[in-house]
Amino acid sequence: MKEQFECLACDKKFPVDVFNTFCPDCKEPLLYHYPEKKRTIHKDQSHTLEVFLDFLPFDKVDHSLLLGEGNSPLVKLRRISEECHVPYMYVKDESFNPTGSFKDRGTAVAIQKVVSLHIDKIGTVSTGNMATSTAAYGAKAKRKTFVFIKEDISTEKLLSCGIYGPVMIKVAGDYGELTYKSFEIGRKHDIYFMNSVDPFRIEGYKVIGLEIFLQLGSQPPDYIFTPMSSGGHLIGLVRAYSELKQEGFIEKMPTFIGVQAEGCSPIAKAFRSGASRVKRIEKANTVAQAITNPNPPGGNMILNMIRENKGSILAVSDTDILSTQKMLAEKEGIFCLPASATTLAGFLQMAKTDTFKVTDKVVLVVTGTGMKNLKVLDSTKMNFYHSSLSTLENTLLSTID
Amino acid sequence: MKEQFECLACDKKFPVDVFNTFCPDCKEPLLYHYPEKKRTIHKDQSHTLEVFLDFLPFDKVDHSLLLGEGNSPLVKLRRISEECHVPYMYVKDESFNPTGSFKDRGTAVAIQKVVSLHIDKIGTVSTGNMATSTAAYGAKAKRKTFVFIKEDISTEKLLSCGIYGPVMIKVAGDYGELTYKSFEIGRKHDIYFMNSVDPFRIEGYKVIGLEIFLQLGSQPPDYIFTPMSSGGHLIGLVRAYSELKQEGFIEKMPTFIGVQAEGCSPIAKAFRSGASRVKRIEKANTVAQAITNPNPPGGNMILNMIRENKGSILAVSDTDILSTQKMLAEKEGIFCLPASATTLAGFLQMAKTDTFKVTDKVVLVVTGTGMKNLKVLDSTKMNFYHSSLSTLENTLLSTID
Repeated sequence: MKEQFECLACDKKFPVDVFNTFCPDCKEPLLYHYPEKKRTIHKDQSHTLEVFLDFLPFDKVDHSLLLGEGNSPLVKLRRISEECHVPYMYVKDESFNPTGSFKDRGTAVAIQKVVSLHIDKIGTVSTGNMATSTAAYGAKAKRKTFVFIKEDISTEKLLSCGIYGPVMIKVAGDYGELTYKSFEIGRKHDIYFMNSVDPFRIEGYKVIGLEIFLQLGSQPPDYIFTPMSSGGHLIGLVRAYSELKQEGFIEKMPTFIGVQAEGCSPIAKAFRSGASRVKRIEKANTVAQAITNPNPPGGNMILNMIRENKGSILAVSDTDILSTQKMLAEKEGIFCLPASATTLAGFLQMAKTDTFKVTDKVVLVVTGTGMKNLKVLDSTKMNFYHSSLSTLENTLLSTID
Repeated sequence: MKEQFECLACDKKFPVDVFNTFCPDCKEPLLYHYPEKKRTIHKDQSHTLEVFLDFLPFDKVDHSLLLGEGNSPLVKLRRISEECHVPYMYVKDESFNPTGSFKDRGTAVAIQKVVSLHIDKIGTVSTGNMATSTAAYGAKAKRKTFVFIKEDISTEKLLSCGIYGPVMIKVAGDYGELTYKSFEIGRKHDIYFMNSVDPFRIEGYKVIGLEIFLQLGSQPPDYIFTPMSSGGHLIGLVRAYSELKQEGFIEKMPTFIGVQAEGCSPIAKAFRSGASRVKRIEKANTVAQAITNPNPPGGNMILNMIRENKGSILAVSDTDILSTQKMLAEKEGIFCLPASATTLAGFLQMAKTDTFKVTDKVVLVVTGTGMKNLKVLDSTKMNFYHSSLSTLENTLLSTID
């Protein structure tokens, strides 16, 4: 089952089996390669995958596989943007997806491809959001679904994935090796493992970037901030704007800023040091669980892309992550994952030294809802009172300045 | 601060202070009354509140108060509909809202009204989803927000509301009395309590119904199933289609089916017994926590509406709620609240005796995401294995039939 792929590092294209999408020469992840054709944006279509069909690796959308994904809102910030004197700040809110995270964008596209190739078993290696997303689409598509998870997965995550009925296997051992093993088993038994830098997933993440363009009135933003773990998400976004530029829809690329959590920031480290390759770190340690890949498979690729783009890769502390998570909720009514709050933390870090212009359009991609990880919140820091019915009026009045 | 309201029970309209929207004669909740005018659906607008502006209690939308609500997907079911021989079954998925439930529809409209009336303090009495929703919009609108909660609220719910920074007061005592007290305090201190049957909330719920109409190609569905607690949600939906009919957009009303959990089903009891008024029950006891109002303020109103509509009000067991919740996830990839699963449980109950036609369009309104209440799930019933890396292939193969 071969399709056309490309290796950016080797600057080569070749037909490759979809079960093994790594470069035979340099082992870097491959990207899907499109045949030459003029691309159009089909604004009259109602589903986002049909609006951007010319940018996707299939010719038609199977509606029976859809779960309502996409067209997530671009919410204009109000108070934070005023305080920072950057009036055009937006959140692209990916919580508005079937399982509450941007992973659904990738899964929605990968499942279209898988079904069109008549593959009947799928899988993923994940610590959380990707597992849930894959299980949901697997259920919708009637595909036997395997989820390999780490031994220390929280009950919360296990339940919200398990409800869809996948086969969940807790595996003891190294996580990096597990990913490798999943591809080996997948190739042998025709199970399509859609892991973090799966080339079809990346095409799905692209759609987030394409939507932002349309939502800004067919203009690119000046800056896009995204959380960064394996690299796939931002690779998709860069690719979206590269293709828009190539097709003549835009003249100037946005500046891309990837943000990692300090406790797991191998790509940011390589970026700062000027290294051309990312070195795996030993152990991730951060509240931003959703972005804790110590050995990011898309690391080298995104490092090059961001350097070429003159963007940046930042690292932010857990303290800043938790305070910006709270800030987004209290000032803007948006409750996001700690991982997603890295975007605001990164913006505020940059704003200390870089001057954003008042005309700059800045987009923060919120990758998932905070409901997915309530354990990081501290109830003792909340405004909380006890009262009886008879003393209620006085209790309430005591809280008004 | 008076506006025009109507009492359906007394068939009267009068100007009433917005802080006290209950009929001065019969004490039933009032509904907003619109001046006579020809209504248009503005399909060219991008925000749902602007598409349906002529059906809403304001003349323009303040975009600074929006959080991305609305335009939730209408997802076509696939396997369940096949098994039931009702091919046109849909889920209107209200999980796709800023705080993950349909409550945001009501809050989004109520907050527009509150801000236009220059009211600077808001509040709500809630056990969960409405509290979170009100806190989020209160934050976005920079309104001091008060949330009165029951003493036994779960930490989960407390955290997901508290993150937005409202003043939360745990109140000991009777919940019905607390609601009454909230209005008393609100009137005295200019705090707008947007509780369950708030007339502006109901106008917001109406939008869900109007969207379904457009999503079905400007046709009404034949049946709409919704979970039922206080009654406000379904009152809004009935109102949506009444107004569409009045304006000549549709000829035939959908049949409305409200579904309660057996452990808290005062409206269903009154419906079955032929009573004209709903009697409060002593204590709610069901897994469907989101629909546990033992003394539903909109009960009498919705009872009349549903009888006139020749619809029905059903009660379903906790066992059926949990099994249909699992069924929706496993067969359709939709993970909803137990309260939302009542709609499928209700449909299956009806399907035993009533014959749905193969041409019938049936819509189940899923009111919120299952992520909000993971505790009802049973991990022991999930497909769950342990393995080492070296035995992984065999473990996996053992799960394939």
